[in-house]
Amino acid sequence: MVFRYSVGLWLFGQLSDRFTVYHQSKSLEEKIAEAAKVKNNQGLETVYPAEFKNTQLDLVKNLLKQHKLQFSGIIVDLFTDPKWMNGTLTSKDEKIRRQAVDISVQTVDIARELDCNIVTLWLGHDGFDYPFQVDYSKKWDLLVDGIREIASHNTSVKIGVEYKLKEPRTHILVGTVGKALLLVNDIDMKNVGVTIDIGHALYSYESPAESICLLNRYNKLFHVHFNDNYRDWDHDMIVGSVNLWDTLEAIYWLRRIRYDGWLALDIYPYRENVQKACERSIENLELMNRLIDKIGVEWLDKCIQSEDATEIVEILRKVF
Amino acid sequence: MVFRYSVGLWLFGQLSDRFTVYHQSKSLEEKIAEAAKVKNNQGLETVYPAEFKNTQLDLVKNLLKQHKLQFSGIIVDLFTDPKWMNGTLTSKDEKIRRQAVDISVQTVDIARELDCNIVTLWLGHDGFDYPFQVDYSKKWDLLVDGIREIASHNTSVKIGVEYKLKEPRTHILVGTVGKALLLVNDIDMKNVGVTIDIGHALYSYESPAESICLLNRYNKLFHVHFNDNYRDWDHDMIVGSVNLWDTLEAIYWLRRIRYDGWLALDIYPYRENVQKACERSIENLELMNRLIDKIGVEWLDKCIQSEDATEIVEILRKVF
Amino acid sequence: MVFRYSVGLWLFGQLSDRFTVYHQSKSLEEKIAEAAKVKNNQGLETVYPAEFKNTQLDLVKNLLKQHKLQFSGIIVDLFTDPKWMNGTLTSKDEKIRRQAVDISVQTVDIARELDCNIVTLWLGHDGFDYPFQVDYSKKWDLLVDGIREIASHNTSVKIGVEYKLKEPRTHILVGTVGKALLLVNDIDMKNVGVTIDIGHALYSYESPAESICLLNRYNKLFHVHFNDNYRDWDHDMIVGSVNLWDTLEAIYWLRRIRYDGWLALDIYPYRENVQKACERSIENLELMNRLIDKIGVEWLDKCIQSEDATEIVEILRKVF
Amino acid sequence: MVFRYSVGLWLFGQLSDRFTVYHQSKSLEEKIAEAAKVKNNQGLETVYPAEFKNTQLDLVKNLLKQHKLQFSGIIVDLFTDPKWMNGTLTSKDEKIRRQAVDISVQTVDIARELDCNIVTLWLGHDGFDYPFQVDYSKKWDLLVDGIREIASHNTSVKIGVEYKLKEPRTHILVGTVGKALLLVNDIDMKNVGVTIDIGHALYSYESPAESICLLNRYNKLFHVHFNDNYRDWDHDMIVGSVNLWDTLEAIYWLRRIRYDGWLALDIYPYRENVQKACERSIENLELMNRLIDKIGVEWLDKCIQSEDATEIVEILRKVF
Repeated sequence: MVFRYSVGLWLFGQLSDRFTVYHQSKSLEEKIAEAAKVKNNQGLETVYPAEFKNTQLDLVKNLLKQHKLQFSGIIVDLFTDPKWMNGTLTSKDEKIRRQAVDISVQTVDIARELDCNIVTLWLGHDGFDYPFQVDYSKKWDLLVDGIREIASHNTSVKIGVEYKLKEPRTHILVGTVGKALLLVNDIDMKNVGVTIDIGHALYSYESPAESICLLNRYNKLFHVHFNDNYRDWDHDMIVGSVNLWDTLEAIYWLRRIRYDGWLALDIYPYRENVQKACERSIENLELMNRLIDKIGVEWLDKCIQSEDATEIVEILRKVF
Repeated sequence: MVFRYSVGLWLFGQLSDRFTVYHQSKSLEEKIAEAAKVKNNQGLETVYPAEFKNTQLDLVKNLLKQHKLQFSGIIVDLFTDPKWMNGTLTSKDEKIRRQAVDISVQTVDIARELDCNIVTLWLGHDGFDYPFQVDYSKKWDLLVDGIREIASHNTSVKIGVEYKLKEPRTHILVGTVGKALLLVNDIDMKNVGVTIDIGHALYSYESPAESICLLNRYNKLFHVHFNDNYRDWDHDMIVGSVNLWDTLEAIYWLRRIRYDGWLALDIYPYRENVQKACERSIENLELMNRLIDKIGVEWLDKCIQSEDATEIVEILRKVF
Repeated sequence: MVFRYSVGLWLFGQLSDRFTVYHQSKSLEEKIAEAAKVKNNQGLETVYPAEFKNTQLDLVKNLLKQHKLQFSGIIVDLFTDPKWMNGTLTSKDEKIRRQAVDISVQTVDIARELDCNIVTLWLGHDGFDYPFQVDYSKKWDLLVDGIREIASHNTSVKIGVEYKLKEPRTHILVGTVGKALLLVNDIDMKNVGVTIDIGHALYSYESPAESICLLNRYNKLFHVHFNDNYRDWDHDMIVGSVNLWDTLEAIYWLRRIRYDGWLALDIYPYRENVQKACERSIENLELMNRLIDKIGVEWLDKCIQSEDATEIVEILRKVF
Repeated sequence: MVFRYSVGLWLFGQLSDRFTVYHQSKSLEEKIAEAAKVKNNQGLETVYPAEFKNTQLDLVKNLLKQHKLQFSGIIVDLFTDPKWMNGTLTSKDEKIRRQAVDISVQTVDIARELDCNIVTLWLGHDGFDYPFQVDYSKKWDLLVDGIREIASHNTSVKIGVEYKLKEPRTHILVGTVGKALLLVNDIDMKNVGVTIDIGHALYSYESPAESICLLNRYNKLFHVHFNDNYRDWDHDMIVGSVNLWDTLEAIYWLRRIRYDGWLALDIYPYRENVQKACERSIENLELMNRLIDKIGVEWLDKCIQSEDATEIVEILRKVF
């Protein structure tokens, strides 16, 4: 099976944490040019309007054409502006909620315009930090209403709700695969599904493969972000650098369910050469793909049907 | 608000872990007599058929009557017999699946017979340990089918599916509040809901209060287990001994949603006097209840509406 | 017992994470003026040279005098400049190591000049992110050498090595109380000890009280940072807002060992009013202090000697 | 480099957790016979006196001879008898402390008698469960005294103190590599060192390779237990089944430091065929060994010296 890879455009701009600025800002042109250098990469994911404005659409189109890239997805920027810090779609301030819907709807239009059919909503500030800080049911109601309104604007664009357990809030409302599916099933619109981030799954003690299968069971797997970590936090490391078997299993099930979307890199190579970190990630994903060819999908399936750990471990050892 | 408390009958029998036996087995009579000594306790939760057989129903009824106790819930024993080790409702062995449904249905009948209207399904062996060990979608299908069959037997008995992230499997299928709600919403039967264990919520990085509210939003909060831990594992410690604020917030929301079920203790006092550990737990729950009276539900609500952490921390400090 | 409180000066400047800038930069004068408003606060902790330069010492002294504050400690800035990103005292680049020693030595001099006798070394970039990334023994040798050189410069200034498990590196070399003590015992200089951060202890699954006692056993408890979190990450929340009992126990043991240093706030009130967040933290610490008076140190000690959890839980409940 | 492998004898007896008994008890003869079937296994680790008595030494010797096995290590049983539940060397009961020293000394004698030169002290009950439960400094004093007394009995037998963060206590005193080294450095006897369990290191967020290097730096790496887990708990899974790279890195550094002890399996194959689970583990360790040959120790070292994650990830990918 052939996968298409994309990189987050933001990787090529400023990368910082609360202590240090690791990589400096770059212009849009520079960022796209850098992203285009990544071997085997065909796509870009971007954050709108943080990375470009709606007045720059022609420029963006030209740059994409020039570098033979297309957008794998657009993420609504509901997290960089301080005005979002206390929530967006679930803010207690109605004006903020309105602005959050508006910018999301605008992103949907821009996605259409840019031939991109997946818009990701990552609601990192919609949550809480302290016990007793929010009325949870009200917040959930607001989530349902807000996403429904956004998705209704143009049902030909898919809305992928991206779940994450924590960061920047200590608790994010759409935190796990179960809550994400609960939410989108509640909203019950064909174009509302889920963007899974393999690292978010890993650090929530999910099996990424299981989460992929569960999303697929409800036809809600819209988009996939790849990265890696130590199952403790969203370190956004090079794909496969820590968890080889989980990554392999994720790729196996993406093949089994005939996922035809993008494999989008969402890594944060703070101290690394960004281009190289992306290339290593894509190479590792390609390796996973080849290893599955080598073992054989059917053989692996037979092995899974046995449910015998000693069989599985033997099969996996033999890839070497 | 007045709460009713119950204790797990198993607390008064053998308590062991993989290294040590801490408390020895006792007869049914002894266990019930011990449980009856717990101050302020009105109920018992039991595991069927591990703790009594269907031939002993008269004895059980007499003991309950004698000790002025009633059953708060019955848990189907799908975990102590080694035959369940590779799964029950989701076993790859059809005979095992059949047995699991049968014993569950039998438990429903016995619950009826014993005037208990909540049967808990805790599917601790239905999961997996290793990457590549199971076909996740198939397992989820089997879960849906199995629970639906059990619940259809007698729709006047509530089936509470209890979620838990891990232990004894490294990964349990019904692991989080989101997955539990996804499952019961998929099954879509009025008598199928969720049993929440506050400790399970805590160690899955859930806010117990949020999980209570979310379950209530879908009318699926059927039963509540209380205990405490360090947010890392199901240590089943004395209620409120570690997480005071989370416990207080859980009680607050149980009051707000007018929960009228039992507060059932599921602690494991390995090294403690079991009676005293139960009494401390109930006393702490009563304390939480009084503290909410002291602050005032309305005042707390106003504070929550502010969403201001510094307000909340001040209010909480003032309970002292 | 009377405690002295201090606040981190950086709390009053820019607070950001990798997504959002929450509070904007302020001038040194503004920051100190803000910090001075915190009720019950007598001290400042600062990061040198990030927060002022050595040409500004007279200004700093005047501001302190004007606001009746003194320095509780100075932290060497070995983390904000990108040049430190691959390590400081343990960098593979000798020039960087030299600069790290030099700036630390300079900080010691400035501490002397400002009547502050504790300099904290927090080596957040000295660690690694990936498997196979460093030669661990060499790094440990460099740590020992570097700290020894810094401490030798002026043995009348105490060097407190602050341990932290992770962030910004996925793994920091001086990660736990055990490794911190191992290191300072290896260095074996009277003025080299440990700065404990209660939140770091909590999220490394340490009992903060145990870590305090262990540090005290080797006369190495030099300085204490207070904050709170969910035992999963350094969220730097308001003191006591999550873990009441652990905070109480920490204060209890600080009293028992007659700690006469500062209780220094290292919180990160991203979305809160900073002054209020500090005041809530100090009020909670004062509350802990009063609760211990209320129970009585001797009574608590008797209770601890019993090692009986049911006794302890009862005692603690009775503080209400 | 050639490694010697051993298996825990207890793996072939009863394996249970707090819910279920997975494998039944077997006689000593049966257990040794089973262990002898494990391909490529040359050693046994045993728990004394749980697995045999001092009256059975001749039998044990004969069985070893018959099956061509030798003891890789003996673990003092300070955890299966309920009398140890509140602590052994650190019990508040002097009689218990005496018994703990006595049984340990006896184990040392038996080790000598059985040509085994490493005795492991795993003090799983020496810790605490609740805040305010113990006087930490007193406990640490008792640890130092107890181990010193045991080690003094016969300085030709190595005492390996095995650290573990938790289980069965929620907090174990000797919890991390740092605390273990702090302790043995404090005891300061040549024959007192550390037994590292790779799984314990992993689930304490240690890098196993770093812990190995740190122990070696102080000449305190006495013995190594291998198993695997999800970095969250001591699941004792098949070696390399989850964390391939960490296991590879551990083997790499064992080679670099010329570790000449045993690689001892401490897995808990609850639901697996025990023999197969052991064989898979040894095969994976052998694979790691071959992969290092394939890459080349010098080449890996060069790569480590670069400290460049993108280099490292590329090297590792190329083992396929």
